[in-house]
Parts: sequence; C-alpha cells; structure tokens
Amino acid sequence: MKIALFNENRVGVVDGSNVIDITELTAWNNEEPQASLVKLMGEFETLRPKIEAGLSSCPVYPVSDVALRAPVPNPSKIVAAPINYILHKQEMNTALTVDGLGFFLKSPSSIIGPDQTVLLPFRDRRVDHEAEIAFVVGKEAKDVKAEDASEYIFGYLALMDITVRGKEDRPWRKSFDTFTPIGPWIVTGDEVENPNQLQMNLWVNDEIRQSANTSDLIYDCYKFFEAASSVMTLLPGDIITTGTPEGVAPITKGDTVRIHIERIGEFSVQVDYKPGI
Amino acid sequence: MKIALFNENRVGVVDGSNVIDITELTAWNNEEPQASLVKLMGEFETLRPKIEAGLSSCPVYPVSDVALRAPVPNPSKIVAAPINYILHKQEMNTALTVDGLGFFLKSPSSIIGPDQTVLLPFRDRRVDHEAEIAFVVGKEAKDVKAEDASEYIFGYLALMDITVRGKEDRPWRKSFDTFTPIGPWIVTGDEVENPNQLQMNLWVNDEIRQSANTSDLIYDCYKFFEAASSVMTLLPGDIITTGTPEGVAPITKGDTVRIHIERIGEFSVQVDYKPGI
Repeated sequence: MKIALFNENRVGVVDGSNVIDITELTAWNNEEPQASLVKLMGEFETLRPKIEAGLSSCPVYPVSDVALRAPVPNPSKIVAAPINYILHKQEMNTALTVDGLGFFLKSPSSIIGPDQTVLLPFRDRRVDHEAEIAFVVGKEAKDVKAEDASEYIFGYLALMDITVRGKEDRPWRKSFDTFTPIGPWIVTGDEVENPNQLQMNLWVNDEIRQSANTSDLIYDCYKFFEAASSVMTLLPGDIITTGTPEGVAPITKGDTVRIHIERIGEFSVQVDYKPGI
Repeated sequence: MKIALFNENRVGVVDGSNVIDITELTAWNNEEPQASLVKLMGEFETLRPKIEAGLSSCPVYPVSDVALRAPVPNPSKIVAAPINYILHKQEMNTALTVDGLGFFLKSPSSIIGPDQTVLLPFRDRRVDHEAEIAFVVGKEAKDVKAEDASEYIFGYLALMDITVRGKEDRPWRKSFDTFTPIGPWIVTGDEVENPNQLQMNLWVNDEIRQSANTSDLIYDCYKFFEAASSVMTLLPGDIITTGTPEGVAPITKGDTVRIHIERIGEFSVQVDYKPGI
C-alpha cells in the first residue's frame, strides 16, 4: 500500500495515477499529521482490512491534481548513514565507511515535500544532491538484529540528503532548512519486498547524475537498522536513511532535481537561493 | 522562576528547598509534558502573574521528597556545540573549534533526568563526562542575531554530554540512550541574568573534574544561538547546549557524577553498565 499525505495534510492511498482520500475512514487528524501517522502505523494490522473494504466509498483525485506533502512530516529523529557505498567512498576520498563512522543525525526541521524548493544558503560554497533510500520506523525498537528489522520497518520512501561540502560536522552541513526532500509517499514493506535490491536514479534537469542499485549498500537497510538500534531507541515515525552512491555533484539555482526508486516512485524538487543571500 | 518536572511529569515552581505543584493552576497535561511545556512557554507572559498569584493555594513538597524528571523531556532537536572552549580544544588535540565545525545533533532519545543512571554501552571503550550549560528555546527562531537571542531563550539548565571517545561521527558517540542527563529544572532567563558569566563545576565521586566559567566560551550562548538559527529553524522546546570546558575524563560503573552551575542549580547521576554487555 502506498500512503500519501496531500493538500492540507490529508491522508490517501495511491492507486495507479489516483489518490484515494482515507482521511475520514481512519479518523486522521490533519492538524497533527505526524501523531496521526504514528497512530495509523500502530493500528495498521487491524486498520488495513477496514481501509481496503472502505476504499470504494472514499473520494478519488488524480495524483496530478493534488499537492503531495512530505509523507513523514515531523519525525523525532532522522538517522543517516555516512559513506555507505564503496564507489562514493572513493569519490569522497575518505578512509572510513559506515562501519567506522556509525551514523549522523539530520534536523527534522530540514524536511520538505515533493515539488517544494531547496534553498541554497550560500552563493560561494558547493551544495550537492545525494539520492538515498530511506524508511520509516513502525514501532519502538532497541537492539534489534538485522534478521528481525523488517518487522520494525513500516515502509520505504525516497530521500535527497542535500549537503554542503566542507569541514564542518555532517549535521551542520546537512540540516539547513529544506535540505531533506522526502517522498513521494510511504510504500509499505510488503509491497517493496526486498529493499536491498532496488534501482535508484537521480537526474538534474533530466541529465542522469546518480544511478545505482541498493544491492551495493555496505550496510543494507536491515544491517543499518541493527547498527542504529544498538545505540538508540528508535521510535515510531523516525526516518532512517541509508546513504548515497557515487555521482554526487553540485546543484544550483534554477535546477530541477528528480529522484526515482524502483517499487517506490519518484518526485522532483526545484533549487533556488535562500532569499537575502 | 525555576520550573521543574517531577513525579508523574507534574510541573512545579521551585522555591528554596520546596517545589510548589502548579499542575492544576496551568492546565498542564502530564501525559504530554513536552507539548505542555511548549504551551506554557508560549503563554508565559500572561500566565506568569496568574502562577505567582496562585502559588499560595498550591500543594507544596520538599524537593528532596519528589523525583525530579528531565525538565525538557522530548525536544524536536538537541543542538550541540563542538569544541567551544580553548583549553578543551587543546586537550582534544584538534585544530578546529565551533567556528569551523558548526554544530552537531544529539538524539532526543538520549535524555534522562536527575538521579537516573547513565548506562555505559561498552566495557572496552572510554566514555567521558562533559559538563555544559544548555538552554531551551522559547519561541520559533530563524536567522536571529546574537543581540536578539535572549528574547528567544526561555530558560537555562545544566546538561551532561556523555561521550564515547573515538573516530565515529559525534552524533553516534553522543546519542546512546541515557547519554544526555539534564536538570535540575529550567531557570528562566530573567533569573539567570548573564548566562555568559557563570561558574560551572563537575565532580565524579566528590572529586572535582571540571571547573570553568562560561565567560571562557568561544561562542557564548547568544552567539551560538545565532550560528544555529542561521542554519535551521529552531522550535519552541528545542535544547541547545554550548560545549564543554577542559577536564573531561572517563566515567565507570559505580561512579556518581554531579554538575553544578551558578544560578541554575545542581544534580547527580549514577553510572552503570548497560545490562547484557
């Protein structure tokens, strides 16, 4: 099932080119979309048959007619893997990978949704796109082994980890407002099947920049889940993102950046300068 | 005013050795303490006279008879300054300070309150105490200049930034569950007066380990607020912590770690191994 947030933080199920509005069906509170998402995930096993049975009586809109929103609007944390593809390690010219670096955190305030605009905070520093497969934690998790991780992952989404290059700590370089575009929706784990064998592409102005398969991850989705949950209690609604493959490159004002992940979907964002810089 | 959380997340005003329970007076919801704190801060100007007028009719308990809780239980982020005292820079043997490093983030899931226990996740790696002055953001802030920062800071608290030494990214080394003890309460800005001239001490088993004045901060509280808010939108209830002075040293099972900051107060935590390691 593909679960989208749209318009005034309504919730919908995406079916082909349509979105079916299940806001009323699920007692979703669109003034508290993150809390509503956590509640929906917590009750999903019993709620899912009710949603499926009720879909035919819900309003339907073409996806192209709605404004998609960040499908996880306000997680308690965004956990991110540094240097998790070998070829990206080479282009970053670094000795360490995720195995030695652990993880970093991005500020939840950096999240934007599809079709929004990444605002560059500098005119004189390089800012890169980074295409990543991410997932949302479905239930509280601590010290969960890789082989059990899929039980704790509610669903998957595409994420751009926008990054200023430089010597500052990663959370600074990656937490500017608008630096975490996510979308286009959450695809539940059953529909993704194997998240560690998906083709991921990123284009800037229709020119391909990143093209890789998640089978090249050093720590795959499940192993990175184990690594993160060995340190911290992961909470329902947390986002975990797995790192980017080779091909990172600068973006600039006027660019359109598009990400596509097999079985998940695609979305684009625009790029502009932050006002006043 | 000193605002404490205690027992089942009730809210109180500390007066000398007593805590006055203002839970009923403020319509505080102790099942949602973070949301209640954000609401209280948002309405504090009008609420404060009502609290002061109503104190005499509220229940009073000796502080020693209650269990103090983390006064900011669940911020949307914890923003932290790396290497923000010159002598700590020397003992860390690093070339960079906060000026070049920016900031890092700690996971909110690492917060514990006074008299709780820090759980060491390793037997074979060094884990240090780091004494810090921290503050809580009172209202949404973006691109706020240092000279205006005090208007956005609701109050101050003491924070221990417990840290594994090593090469991993700071968020990993500092986000283990229990690695952010905070307390003993929030002291509102008016009562602190100048946060950039306060004596701060930390003891392990009554042996002094860190003793410094916040006047030695490279980026003082206001300047670091400016630096953080130039990157990210700071939200009410966020914690910002300013970095530690020289004297960091290992802690181990059985230790009691105590922090005292002038005008703010003091609290202790115990140290043990995480079960099962």
